[in-house]
Amino acid sequence: MSDLTALETPAALIDLARMQHNIDRMQARMTALGVRFRPHVKTSKCVPVAKAQQAAGAQGITVSTLKEATQFFANGFTDILYAVGMVPAKLPQALALRRQGCDLKIITDSVASASAIAAFGHEQGELFEVWIEIDSDGHRSGIKPDDAVLLDVARTVHEGGQKLGGVMTHAGGSYDFDTLDALVAMAEQERAGCVRAAERIRAAGLPCAVVSVGSTPTALSAVRLEGVTEVRAGVYVFFDLVMHNIGVCETSDIALTVLTTVIGHQSEKGWAIVDAGWMAMSRDRGTQKQKHDFGYGQVCSVDGEVLPGYVVSGANQEHGIVSLQGSVDVDIASRFPVGSQLRILPNHACATGAQFPVYQALDATGAVTEWPRFYGW
Amino acid sequence: MSDLTALETPAALIDLARMQHNIDRMQARMTALGVRFRPHVKTSKCVPVAKAQQAAGAQGITVSTLKEATQFFANGFTDILYAVGMVPAKLPQALALRRQGCDLKIITDSVASASAIAAFGHEQGELFEVWIEIDSDGHRSGIKPDDAVLLDVARTVHEGGQKLGGVMTHAGGSYDFDTLDALVAMAEQERAGCVRAAERIRAAGLPCAVVSVGSTPTALSAVRLEGVTEVRAGVYVFFDLVMHNIGVCETSDIALTVLTTVIGHQSEKGWAIVDAGWMAMSRDRGTQKQKHDFGYGQVCSVDGEVLPGYVVSGANQEHGIVSLQGSVDVDIASRFPVGSQLRILPNHACATGAQFPVYQALDATGAVTEWPRFYGW
Repeated sequence: MSDLTALETPAALIDLARMQHNIDRMQARMTALGVRFRPHVKTSKCVPVAKAQQAAGAQGITVSTLKEATQFFANGFTDILYAVGMVPAKLPQALALRRQGCDLKIITDSVASASAIAAFGHEQGELFEVWIEIDSDGHRSGIKPDDAVLLDVARTVHEGGQKLGGVMTHAGGSYDFDTLDALVAMAEQERAGCVRAAERIRAAGLPCAVVSVGSTPTALSAVRLEGVTEVRAGVYVFFDLVMHNIGVCETSDIALTVLTTVIGHQSEKGWAIVDAGWMAMSRDRGTQKQKHDFGYGQVCSVDGEVLPGYVVSGANQEHGIVSLQGSVDVDIASRFPVGSQLRILPNHACATGAQFPVYQALDATGAVTEWPRFYGW
Repeated sequence: MSDLTALETPAALIDLARMQHNIDRMQARMTALGVRFRPHVKTSKCVPVAKAQQAAGAQGITVSTLKEATQFFANGFTDILYAVGMVPAKLPQALALRRQGCDLKIITDSVASASAIAAFGHEQGELFEVWIEIDSDGHRSGIKPDDAVLLDVARTVHEGGQKLGGVMTHAGGSYDFDTLDALVAMAEQERAGCVRAAERIRAAGLPCAVVSVGSTPTALSAVRLEGVTEVRAGVYVFFDLVMHNIGVCETSDIALTVLTTVIGHQSEKGWAIVDAGWMAMSRDRGTQKQKHDFGYGQVCSVDGEVLPGYVVSGANQEHGIVSLQGSVDVDIASRFPVGSQLRILPNHACATGAQFPVYQALDATGAVTEWPRFYGW
């Protein structure tokens, strides 16, 4: 393993071998299921990561902000789905991207938003490609597959002179399950709901070429994807402890860790204090309500080996408290001396990555390369 | 009020009148108590904010990372306390700052760390000013005031040829209280513990000029500060919902809000979907265990008026769910139409601010100025 002691801590490390394994696993699954794969780059916000996904066979990317769209377009990505409901104030930025040659797709789930898109497109002489967001699991946005308003929105787009490109859904509700049966059922619910919406649109004589579904848990659990044309997923590229608890990865698949340094101890409490607080780990406590609560993260040796039972049990802004779950390790000061390094598996890779301006990409030879990432809006 | 519709959302707004009121309130209190005030700039990581604190009478700043130290020093701040335990790997960066003329103070709470500082200082011919961290409330780092190791550490610094500058403590445990009596008692515990440590060091014939205490709740509750030379506090500059629940501010004092746009609805559930998800609000759920749980934030009109009962009840990365606590507002789509703007009071200003590359500073005339902030390490 490389000499990580040269890195300033806290640092966000990507284990490139694990990342590539995760990319290959997902792409192979999508290819076998006969669908295109459009990774959600909100997880990494990092060009080299998205290029690795593209090299493995991904077609297009999904973004969560127009800043991501702008940055990835500037780095050669053209087929981009902006997967957050479009509002009037953001249309000029979307227009500017399209005018520069970006094949940006936007989404809507209301007549109000669809009308605004159509009016702006007409006024500007632009043909926006619009997909309709479908609510397949009740967890967030979208139109229910059988809701009458679906066809109102579809007609508003199509008859408003815009390109009705398809339908998309995200079964984020899959995060609430942790058995294969439940995940398979949720994947089928996601598929069936989105396909049903597409069929209703087509039956009304309107176009609906794309049927786009996905979340990491459902993408890795689906057994059939008839009627689906593409799948989207984001966090699979790094995985994290939430995904581990859901049951779609092992801890040994988690490619993102936070490198940290021990800065002190409270030995009688069994605490080692590290320089990865919540600013580094993020405030995400996604495993809190799951079957295994990892606090702010699972502690590993600097070589990446899980140290069972040791977690970041508490966090201040720049201080993390490392302790043994269920008992007091009175030898913690000798086990993890001041100045020694540890690595922490995060609860939620999207949230933890977002705390860092750069990743440290660690290859199999131990060499480390700095990979910048975007943030903000 | 200004026309905020020109701002891209989500955006982090600072209400400058509120911020100045908060700065003046704290400074007046510290002056009345006869102590210097050293604001913790980890909350804002923003030069104009720290300059406003300095202009009001603050003496020196506190930082949580060496990057903050570097950035603030580059912007004219010289008296800087780095208030996280020093480790060997960070000494070269501290040295570089001192060699450039930065009056950087560093802290330690162990013989191991103190020895490393002394050895490095000796080797480099540098006289580091070192303060000893005291544990006044058991919540994190530091040496207990009566612990024998206190004098070992003090001697290691002093006899190791470094400058023993003083003692410092942070009663972060004050965040667990919400009555004035409890806060006054915690402030006294913080004061007494730190003063006790200083007296022991002096009684051993060692220097201990500075006695530095503080947290926002204790700084705003202390009734006497005999023996204390300076106080530190950070979040008071913006305040937030956690501080409101603790009882040290009103919601009308909270100077930081997130400006957001309504992007859709699930009317039958009483949900408005906004573009401030957890990436904007942060994952901080600091009010979850307090007397009033505000979800991911309290909703206000675009003019900043609290809309009672409306909170961000759920959050995905770029989606927030706004709903009425305790009932379903079936009229939410007409109340908050697609494209309309709202402002959200955050749980924790330090965490929410950190999600944004810039603040939008809103003055009394309604003019908005972009104020950059630092992030990362």
